[in-house]
This record gives sequence, structure tokens and C-alpha cells, in this order.
Amino acid sequence: MPKSANRIYIGVIGAGHCSEEVTKTAFEVGRRIAEANAILVCGGLGGVMAAASEGAQSAGGVTIGILPGTDRSDANSFIEYAIPTGMGEARNLLVVRSSDAIIALPGGSGTLSELAFAQKLEKHIIDFGGWNISDAAHKASNAEEAVRLALQMTTPRMDMSARES
Amino acid sequence: MPKSANRIYIGVIGAGHCSEEVTKTAFEVGRRIAEANAILVCGGLGGVMAAASEGAQSAGGVTIGILPGTDRSDANSFIEYAIPTGMGEARNLLVVRSSDAIIALPGGSGTLSELAFAQKLEKHIIDFGGWNISDAAHKASNAEEAVRLALQMTTPRMDMSARES
Amino acid sequence: MPKSANRIYIGVIGAGHCSEEVTKTAFEVGRRIAEANAILVCGGLGGVMAAASEGAQSAGGVTIGILPGTDRSDANSFIEYAIPTGMGEARNLLVVRSSDAIIALPGGSGTLSELAFAQKLEKHIIDFGGWNISDAAHKASNAEEAVRLALQMTTPRMDMSARES
Amino acid sequence: MPKSANRIYIGVIGAGHCSEEVTKTAFEVGRRIAEANAILVCGGLGGVMAAASEGAQSAGGVTIGILPGTDRSDANSFIEYAIPTGMGEARNLLVVRSSDAIIALPGGSGTLSELAFAQKLEKHIIDFGGWNISDAAHKASNAEEAVRLALQMTTPRMDMSARES
Repeated sequence: MPKSANRIYIGVIGAGHCSEEVTKTAFEVGRRIAEANAILVCGGLGGVMAAASEGAQSAGGVTIGILPGTDRSDANSFIEYAIPTGMGEARNLLVVRSSDAIIALPGGSGTLSELAFAQKLEKHIIDFGGWNISDAAHKASNAEEAVRLALQMTTPRMDMSARES
Repeated sequence: MPKSANRIYIGVIGAGHCSEEVTKTAFEVGRRIAEANAILVCGGLGGVMAAASEGAQSAGGVTIGILPGTDRSDANSFIEYAIPTGMGEARNLLVVRSSDAIIALPGGSGTLSELAFAQKLEKHIIDFGGWNISDAAHKASNAEEAVRLALQMTTPRMDMSARES
Repeated sequence: MPKSANRIYIGVIGAGHCSEEVTKTAFEVGRRIAEANAILVCGGLGGVMAAASEGAQSAGGVTIGILPGTDRSDANSFIEYAIPTGMGEARNLLVVRSSDAIIALPGGSGTLSELAFAQKLEKHIIDFGGWNISDAAHKASNAEEAVRLALQMTTPRMDMSARES
Repeated sequence: MPKSANRIYIGVIGAGHCSEEVTKTAFEVGRRIAEANAILVCGGLGGVMAAASEGAQSAGGVTIGILPGTDRSDANSFIEYAIPTGMGEARNLLVVRSSDAIIALPGGSGTLSELAFAQKLEKHIIDFGGWNISDAAHKASNAEEAVRLALQMTTPRMDMSARES
């Protein structure tokens, strides 16, 4: 069993520029991901990506940023490991592939492309942005619920044993 | 001016399996694209992609299929030029990039990812599948209108001179 | 059997800037590819790519250019169908994947990456640039031999039946 | 300045299956990368990739594996962070892009494609596999020298200040 298989990777997607309210929410999502010892994956840039990364780092968590450009220094200041792809928007697909579950905050067409890929790849999706694009997505109304759902869906056995005890 | 710049490339996106009604519509969209001397670009597989390609070929048009797999023979029988990418769903982005305008028929999450990329890349979008994802998309209610809108948006000057005369 | 399966795709790779001598050779390679009714695939830019495309077009052939950038107009003037990928150097892999055989003229590290991919993907390779990177590559000493070898390797049955008759 | 900009990423490339001797060497390369507090990037699979990753982990280092397939569990047991790309051989380019310097051990055509990309992208290259493909590559004759050269080339200023003191 590879070492990497022991950790859960949660992708956080959303707008590259966002309101103060969404910033706060993204920060809390990131913080809770880190507190659960999961790894935060994102597109590595600003807005929701930066806020979630800052939240994760505030709790000592690991953040991975998969960048559209060729320069690692494009990453926001809270990305611990930056992967510059040079593949432009195609990096969106890599964010989704690298994640076991996706938490979608409000965003634009880039975020929508990630959500669509997440559906196509049958990833667990937490809709925390009013997207309503799929019955398969689980809606969350706050950061605590969003992260809890993501963890539950990616660790079915742990969840079951918890229920049994 | 490269030779390729003289032609218009219209992407047709939609489900890999579709109803008889959608098949007929896709065929007509493809036929009209070919009659306008535009090039049809698609994902090269079945359903909407095959029907539109068949329509284009029925009118002597050119069809380009950008395939997810590594084998050219995955292409439907109406693809004239097949590009096997081996990049899986990432090929969706290539379909969009290769198109000057996108006509979206009904489809699933793969089609949605293409629509989202088309928005992100600011391509002209004809919504002919009830997608309603963007104010920027132009809605069409039949194949004739869908192709006419796509042509109008990609040839502003030809359009103007037509109006003047 | 898809229509596209009936044609042979030959990739021509080499430097984006080249000597007059290599230009002439690349032109002849392209011309002979077209005369054999095969499709020429290349990276769509200058040097070897442009010269081979011009040669193919001079004989009424089809040329496909798979571009690194996002703009179709980056293609040289002899590309009939241009695929802008926006994926930078990753497009090199697409040139190789789309080709049944690769004819390698002199070039630099971009060409070398294509040759290495061609080996990895077990494509037929014609070494017409003194590359000497693989025992599996067939060396050619002139354009006629290069194209003849490429055709022979990609059409074993036609070749055999020709021998039998 | 993003946090990720403070660390050096060294790519280790080489065969997916290798001799015991190369395995030992790759292990030592990985160990020394970790001891220098640099991050090891590789293709995440076996052979040189696994041995170097094991070496890095033996010294408490960080290992990132960029996988060709879609499944994180394809990673070798010593990959701490695994990025499944689903893009096949195109992931080779991502390994190179994500690295500030590349140490090339013996390998086949996959490794050669990475070396060619590293040249194309003007990355620092340490030839520790007798590749001899470029004057720009620095040859190393042992693991200590390979890692020392990689570090020197990626930290010119630290190197200079060390010389001054």
C-alpha cells in the first residue's frame, strides 16, 4: 500500500476572486480539512483557492496547488507544494483527478468545468456554492458540514465502524 | 495568412448516446455546417458526435474528431480526420480550443465540461440543448438557427457586408 | 470501419528553423507523402514543419498542424487543418500519437522529445536526421526512401499483396 | 513570496525497472536530496523512481509522484504526495515542469523524452546516466556529485555567499 494511499485528498474549487464572506468560508473549509489530517488540493491561485489554503496552513495542514502556468511562483503564499503544469485550463482536470472529493464554493466557468469533470469522473461532490448541477452532489450549508460530508464519503469503512461502536 | 485561417471551425458537442430525435437534429446541424463550407469539430465518438459527423459528410463536408483514447479506429465512421490524444477527458478542452464557435446539443457532464471551457475561453456558444448556463450563450430553437447563429458570430465582416448590399 | 482508418497519417518532425538544404528535403518529403495519398501531420509552425507542409500542398495533399498555442493563426500558411492546443510542449505528444509513422529530420530538443515519445509509443520511426537514438528506427538517406519506408511499415498487407502479385 | 518558492524541487528520472546497482545509486540520490531539504519529484512508479523515493523518505524527505494513470494507488510505497494525471506519457512533461533541476539516471525512451523536455524548457540537467545528449547537461559520476551540482545550479546566490564567507 503506497504511503500516499493513507491520506485523503480534498479538492477545493471556486472563484479566483471572491467576496469577504466567501473568503471567510473558504478559510474555514481549509482549516477543517487540515484538522481532519486530509490534504487540500486546489488550483493554487487567488480567491477561494488562496483562502482555503491559508485556512489549511493555519491548522498546520498540507496544501497542493496545481497551477495553469509554467512558473511555481504564481502560487499563492499558502501553497506548500506547487505543480506548475503549463497546460492552461487543462490543469482544472488535474485538480479534479487528484482529489478524492471536491468541495465546490461559488465560482465561474472555470469552477463549473471542474464540477463537470468531477461528475464525469464520478468523484464525490459537495455542493457548497448553490450550483445545483447534479443530483449526485451533496449540498452543504456550512463549512463544518461540507468537510464532514467530504470525509464521510471518502472513508466509508471508518464511518461504518464508527456507527457500529 | 495561413490557409487554415480561411475556414470556420464549428464544434458540435452533446451526448455520446442520444434519442432518435436528437440524432436527427444533430444530423441536420452537421449537414448545415458542411453546406456553409465550415469544418465540423467534435469528440469523434457516438451519439450526437456521430450523427453530426454523418450529416456533415452527407453534404460533402470535412469532419475532425478529437478522441480521448489512443486508437484512431475509435472514431465513428463519419470522421474524416481523427486525432487520438490519449489524454482522456482532457481532450474535451481540445475540442473547444479547436472551435471558433460551439453548438451544444443535449448531453451530460462531459458536454457540460466543454460548455464551461467554452465560456472560460470566451468562445461563441449556441445553446441548442436547453443548457441555460450563461447569458453569453445564444439560444437556438432549431438546427437552421443554430448554424446560422454560429456562422454570424464567427464572421462579423461577411455579415456586415451582406447587410450593406 | 471509420473513414479515417482508411488513410495513413505520417508525422514529419524537425527544427522550427532550418537550412535551405533541409528545407528542400522537407519539401520533398511532404510532396511524396501527398503523392502517396497519406496525410501529413506536424507541429504546424515553421522550418521543417512549414517546408513539409508546403510540399504536401504542392501535390494537393492534406496537412494537419497541431499547435502549441491557443491561436489557429499561428499555423504556417500550408496547414489545411489547424488544431490549437494551448498545451505548450505537451502538443509534441499529440503530434506523435496522431501519426502512424514518424519521419524525423534534423532538429533540436523538441524534435528529440517527439522521437522519444515515438519510441515509447512504439510508432514506426524513419530516422532521416542522423539521430541514431534507437535500433528500432529505420535510417533513410533521401526523401524518396524516407517516405517509401514509412509507407511500407504502415501498410504491411498492401505491401505483401504487392509482392505476391 | 509563496511558501512553495522557498524550497527546491529536484526531479529524478530513470528506468521503471533497473539493476541492483542503479537501485542503490537512485536510493542515495534520493537520500541526499532529502538531506538537503529539497523536494523530490518523480513519475511515481517503480525502478529508479521507487528507489529514489525510498532514499528520500529514509532521510525524512518529501516525495511527489506525478502518475500517468488515474489511480493514486499506482504510486510506489515511498510517494508521499501522489498526483494521478490520467494523461499517460504526457505526465512526463509535468515531472519536468515541476522540477527546478533534473537528475537523469539510466533509462529508456520515457526518460529520454523527459530529458528532451528538460532541455527544451531550459531546466538544469545533471546527466548521471551517460546520456550525453547535450552540452548544457552537467555530468556527474556519483550520487553526491549529482545532488551537489543540482543544488548549486538552483541556488546560485546561496552558493556565492557560501564562497564569500
